[in-house]
Amino acid sequence: MHHYRLTIQYDGSRYKGWQRLGQGENTIQSKVEQVLSDGIGQHVEIIGAGRTDAGVHALEQVAHFKSAVKLDLKKIQKHFNHYLPPDISVLETIEAHPEFHARYDAVEKTYLYQIWNEPHSQPFLRKYSMHVKTKLNIDQMKNAAQYFIGEHDFTAYSNAKSNKKKAVRSVYRVELEERAGLIQIRVNGNGFLYNMVRKMVGTLVEVGLGKKETHEIPEILKAKDRSRTGMQAEPQGLYLEKVSFKVPH
Amino acid sequence: MHHYRLTIQYDGSRYKGWQRLGQGENTIQSKVEQVLSDGIGQHVEIIGAGRTDAGVHALEQVAHFKSAVKLDLKKIQKHFNHYLPPDISVLETIEAHPEFHARYDAVEKTYLYQIWNEPHSQPFLRKYSMHVKTKLNIDQMKNAAQYFIGEHDFTAYSNAKSNKKKAVRSVYRVELEERAGLIQIRVNGNGFLYNMVRKMVGTLVEVGLGKKETHEIPEILKAKDRSRTGMQAEPQGLYLEKVSFKVPH
Repeated sequence: MHHYRLTIQYDGSRYKGWQRLGQGENTIQSKVEQVLSDGIGQHVEIIGAGRTDAGVHALEQVAHFKSAVKLDLKKIQKHFNHYLPPDISVLETIEAHPEFHARYDAVEKTYLYQIWNEPHSQPFLRKYSMHVKTKLNIDQMKNAAQYFIGEHDFTAYSNAKSNKKKAVRSVYRVELEERAGLIQIRVNGNGFLYNMVRKMVGTLVEVGLGKKETHEIPEILKAKDRSRTGMQAEPQGLYLEKVSFKVPH
Repeated sequence: MHHYRLTIQYDGSRYKGWQRLGQGENTIQSKVEQVLSDGIGQHVEIIGAGRTDAGVHALEQVAHFKSAVKLDLKKIQKHFNHYLPPDISVLETIEAHPEFHARYDAVEKTYLYQIWNEPHSQPFLRKYSMHVKTKLNIDQMKNAAQYFIGEHDFTAYSNAKSNKKKAVRSVYRVELEERAGLIQIRVNGNGFLYNMVRKMVGTLVEVGLGKKETHEIPEILKAKDRSRTGMQAEPQGLYLEKVSFKVPH
């Protein structure tokens, strides 16, 4: 078998998320698999580093796949460039270590969340940010963000549906930047539960609006109380920005 | 009468351009007029500094209008923020000099044109740039751009439809920048004919592809020969970036 690794960028607006669902469902994974399988001439399954929800974007999603035939990398890249829809782009196709697994070997992920924080809309960011018209208190949000850092049980920040046995995750960094009305929040950690980033951003926005106090975050985490996290930020502001893997991959 | 000036930003993707057409036509002007007229309670006509074509965007379009009633500027701005669709945004509503005319007083306009110049698509720029997969020769394009600078008869760079008597325009600057696959071309001058910027960019792209020689530009201009300008760049890469007015407006 031959092993390959893809770096994929996509605008998630039109899709039901990354993960392949039933037959005919419009997802990124199924679209890339279809184009790739057509190119290779046999059915290929790809495995992504992280699932992204409906409407969520990726700057650098990573996936791996196996192929019985050895591929001409230049040719397969040309095939992608030609046949993928313009809202999905394969940035790179390279050979991978035979044991490389995009999901299990991912040791660090960075998500970006964008908030447009002006009373008027920003026409070019309307599909790439959440619009919050009321002025947010960035300093308070920065203070609040620090409470997420470290190893915590994030049950309160997970979706009831997901019901993972182990909800302990380490968040390494939560950084907020504001420039000309655009707030960018970068969240970096060893892994994230379903909807976790959007729920964290939701809490930060409520802090920024003065609806929630900074010190509530450790209480919410400790109580594992989903009802207290507040709103869940909209999907279109979220990007999977970067995935890092353990060496030597 | 009371006089006002608007600064308007829009994503032109969904619209048939700036200019109001027949009844029920989806244009930026008619949309803003409709929301403004509803807000004031009487029919208002707005006049824009420059017309933009179907699919063309604006970072700062300027328009003026008259109103029999004095407006509460904060209130009208809130009305815009609330009722305009998210792809049109009024950035500012201010009082204007009674003689201010957005079209006749505009002395300088800057257009931005974006080209995505990589073999793969850029999902987030697909509606905001023209995708040219073949590597362009930027240095040659920069050389070619200089031939547009100065006062010329731009008949060759106008649309046959427009048929303006006077096609003499002054181009002050044509600047090209390339960064990480994105080429930005800024064209600045005292006025532009219908489709002129897109035709200029089309010529530059053909120079960048090696299909046209730099020195052909003065010949094309001199011959007023529309058949030699080459392709017309796609609308979605073009933005009206800035309009400057004569003092004291």
